[in-house]
Amino acid sequence: MTTAINGATRLYAIIGDPIAQVRSPQLYTELFASAGMNAVMVPMHVLPDRFDETVPALQAIGNLDGLVITVPYKARAVRFAAKLGKTAARIGALNALRRESDGTWSGEMFDGAGFVRAAERKGATLRDRSVALFGAGGAGSAIGCELAAAGVRSLAIIDPQRERAAVLARVLGEAFPACTVKPADGVPNDVDMIVNASTVGMRDDDGLPGDIGSLPRGTLIGDAVISERPTALIRHAMRHDCTFVAGRDMLSGQADALLSFLSRA
Amino acid sequence: MTTAINGATRLYAIIGDPIAQVRSPQLYTELFASAGMNAVMVPMHVLPDRFDETVPALQAIGNLDGLVITVPYKARAVRFAAKLGKTAARIGALNALRRESDGTWSGEMFDGAGFVRAAERKGATLRDRSVALFGAGGAGSAIGCELAAAGVRSLAIIDPQRERAAVLARVLGEAFPACTVKPADGVPNDVDMIVNASTVGMRDDDGLPGDIGSLPRGTLIGDAVISERPTALIRHAMRHDCTFVAGRDMLSGQADALLSFLSRA
Repeated sequence: MTTAINGATRLYAIIGDPIAQVRSPQLYTELFASAGMNAVMVPMHVLPDRFDETVPALQAIGNLDGLVITVPYKARAVRFAAKLGKTAARIGALNALRRESDGTWSGEMFDGAGFVRAAERKGATLRDRSVALFGAGGAGSAIGCELAAAGVRSLAIIDPQRERAAVLARVLGEAFPACTVKPADGVPNDVDMIVNASTVGMRDDDGLPGDIGSLPRGTLIGDAVISERPTALIRHAMRHDCTFVAGRDMLSGQADALLSFLSRA
Repeated sequence: MTTAINGATRLYAIIGDPIAQVRSPQLYTELFASAGMNAVMVPMHVLPDRFDETVPALQAIGNLDGLVITVPYKARAVRFAAKLGKTAARIGALNALRRESDGTWSGEMFDGAGFVRAAERKGATLRDRSVALFGAGGAGSAIGCELAAAGVRSLAIIDPQRERAAVLARVLGEAFPACTVKPADGVPNDVDMIVNASTVGMRDDDGLPGDIGSLPRGTLIGDAVISERPTALIRHAMRHDCTFVAGRDMLSGQADALLSFLSRA
């Protein structure tokens, strides 16, 4: 996609570490153009020890109207929102910040909604699934939250930081009493859906996020990692002829909602 | 001009207040593309009370390699360069900052060189001119410096802040003993060149920068203001059939030098 930039162009930035792999700049720059906006989304590589001073400086730039937040900052970004949307408030993480008309900043998390929307587009049913979820960070929390809201039967949350998995399980269990949510050390035997929301898969030589084994027919696979080539988990799904939702699908799935949030449309 | 943006795009930003009028984003984004660089220049509107915290935050962004500085920050930006080029060091103002390969930042001022180059492109001779220069700020200092280096006979520097004009006159007089440099309250009678480097002309309803009167044939007119339509001073030059160098000409005149500075080519 191509676009023009001039002095009156409004800015949006995606912040992460690393950054070169992100797809949002081309996706949203194209969507802004389609919507008739003179706006671009640029990538910004911000290191962890500079994040807390960079975000307020960017929020003070007069023609910068919104930020997309990616790994590893989705939880840390919460402190820079004066107001949080429902999902961001529930899980304590966000992936979008926008300037309101009164000059304050609001945040919301669209990763989970994007995942659910992408699964629906693939014709997958989520209701009553038994899910193993790798990763209890920002993306994992968001996906877990929206899967529970979409009616999955159970969620087993696997994270090397077991306390983090336990906290997320408690939060989601309280918010969605119809869903059985527990921390787990590995993939339970009876699951029919496996989602990776850990960072495993971001490097080309990464393997599977855990011990998964062969996949029964009908298992639904999801991977939040945005990558040029299919991750090991997505390749595993392909080999077993399973329906899958890849990171790019999740990105497309949340595009409409994120665009209307950012542009205050 | 159009360009593609993706996660690996390198960033350059132009900082000013106001910002919507600047032409550098389209100019340099086009030049980056012509040079085969995956890079864009974006406008950033930074307010005076946030400038000192914004610049270091931008310098810490891993994929942001350079900054162009415009009104009113050309002098204030000097403190953010560990090393200054010759002109920037002489006049204490800069319009470009770049990250060196060792991670430090250097600055240089190209406004004056751009003005001289643009005058040459118009076929104008600068040597032995008697010049009235409005504005002793960053742009005025840079243009005065390069005009003296190009061999003008005299410079009368007019600025409402008379002390600022006096300081610049002293600095340039010492650096270029062959040139007679003085602060002045108005345009001397015998000048054959008038340059506006004040901010008068940035607003559409601005008039001339001072009492100029009719222009003898052969008077060379310059205006550093970058504007969509010709400024009152440029229209005055047109009416008197005088050669002129407009802000856009100055911008084009410095493009090659600024591009090779920013891209460390």
